[in-house]
Amino acid sequence: MMRTVAICGVGLIGGSFGLALRKAGFSGEILGVSSPATIRDAISVGAIDREATLGEAVAQADLIYLAQPILVILDTLPMLDAAKPGALITDAGSTKTAIVERARRPQRRAQFIGGHPMAGKEVRGVLAAEADLFEGRSYFLTPDTTEEANSDAVLEFRKWLEDIRCNVHLAKPAEHDRIVAYTSHLAQLASTALAGTISSSLGRSARPGAGPGLQDMTRLALSSYDLWADILATNSMEIDKALGDYIAHLMHIRSTLPLNLENQFKAASNFAKSLRDR
Amino acid sequence: MMRTVAICGVGLIGGSFGLALRKAGFSGEILGVSSPATIRDAISVGAIDREATLGEAVAQADLIYLAQPILVILDTLPMLDAAKPGALITDAGSTKTAIVERARRPQRRAQFIGGHPMAGKEVRGVLAAEADLFEGRSYFLTPDTTEEANSDAVLEFRKWLEDIRCNVHLAKPAEHDRIVAYTSHLAQLASTALAGTISSSLGRSARPGAGPGLQDMTRLALSSYDLWADILATNSMEIDKALGDYIAHLMHIRSTLPLNLENQFKAASNFAKSLRDR
Repeated sequence: MMRTVAICGVGLIGGSFGLALRKAGFSGEILGVSSPATIRDAISVGAIDREATLGEAVAQADLIYLAQPILVILDTLPMLDAAKPGALITDAGSTKTAIVERARRPQRRAQFIGGHPMAGKEVRGVLAAEADLFEGRSYFLTPDTTEEANSDAVLEFRKWLEDIRCNVHLAKPAEHDRIVAYTSHLAQLASTALAGTISSSLGRSARPGAGPGLQDMTRLALSSYDLWADILATNSMEIDKALGDYIAHLMHIRSTLPLNLENQFKAASNFAKSLRDR
Repeated sequence: MMRTVAICGVGLIGGSFGLALRKAGFSGEILGVSSPATIRDAISVGAIDREATLGEAVAQADLIYLAQPILVILDTLPMLDAAKPGALITDAGSTKTAIVERARRPQRRAQFIGGHPMAGKEVRGVLAAEADLFEGRSYFLTPDTTEEANSDAVLEFRKWLEDIRCNVHLAKPAEHDRIVAYTSHLAQLASTALAGTISSSLGRSARPGAGPGLQDMTRLALSSYDLWADILATNSMEIDKALGDYIAHLMHIRSTLPLNLENQFKAASNFAKSLRDR
């Protein structure tokens, strides 16, 4: 039974998870492991009930939710061996292969399952957290085996994810990392590169030419490098492949210009529409 | 004095211009030159008062506003020689060099000035028109000379553009085309190529990996090729150069991966922020 939850790293994602649990009716205690300033803010917005040390969290929690940056998650995982038998450890990191690999510790008593909510925004921190940030979004879980995905602890966690209206998807860690290399990491780099290209080619004279489309295309470019350094470092091979595919696609379009791009536009439009189908 | 306005091509842009003029207090007559079905819709939403043939519009209008696709504008321009002395002809085409070149007709009695409102959305047609579509957006005017930009007819038109809350920017046609090659045309192709790349690499398995960032990055990919064929055909050299710059930027990022992208992220983020400064 999930009575006590510990959220390690109470930022945008960790804070939103706490708020979402409460909104979905979770009545147990939510502990927060984070910096003093964050803890104060997190308590004030209702994302957690009280501060805990990592040791206290490990000793008491039935669910340990790691929502720190990826490299901090990697550092934290070896410190959770004393978690309670029957408890569940999960994380919200944007890449999974490195984390799941690090989580393989026979000496740990609690189960681990990797996770990744496909939610976020360009503003960070618990003050930007929202109870419905995950609503209608995909939530990847990356078990190694079918049994892992169906343990009592995981089934209870999945029930809560459904109650906070996520669409749970099961994928192997490598499959997850390949998918998000395109849908998230390549999208980020395409936006960063677009902003960088226009900035260096036009500078301030770009401003009057910026319409609503460019606003969309540069929103991801606002993202902080702090978050992305870890993602790039832990999924570099898949990202390299995705970037290579994107560059080849752009070179093909360039060589086809100015005519005969109808098929490319149609395929892209159909795909973009399919992302919007309910 | 601008008493009668004729809008040729009453779609999203032409219709929004009519609605915006009305909202800003224009009390003269607004004629529409378009297909019968469009005319019916345009009258019903209040974007125009009545239908006119091109001949009637040319004979009567003090402002002839060409809001058709670019190639149709190019075909229409030689048919406007009989427009009234003192009248103004302008257009809303997304590229300017070809249009301004075609508009150079000494035998025409009315002045021409190229124009381009930096507004739009992925839905087309007069039923999607909005009175405030141009509000707060840039509106390029592309005179060849300072005198052209300050004739009585142009000054009156500029006054109306300010009344409908556009930010008017003067630029030479070639300068305009270079700017929008990056801010609009490259942004479009970056989105089309991203959707195309993900579609061919992942297909339907991309769906659970699609978060809000990918929604932003693929909104432009929804655009219809009909509109873009004309743009690509009339600005191909500048677009080729912009695409080349973007590909080089992406190749540089790829060769730098996974580390040391902090400067690229910072430059891109600063530029994206500058687009959002008021």
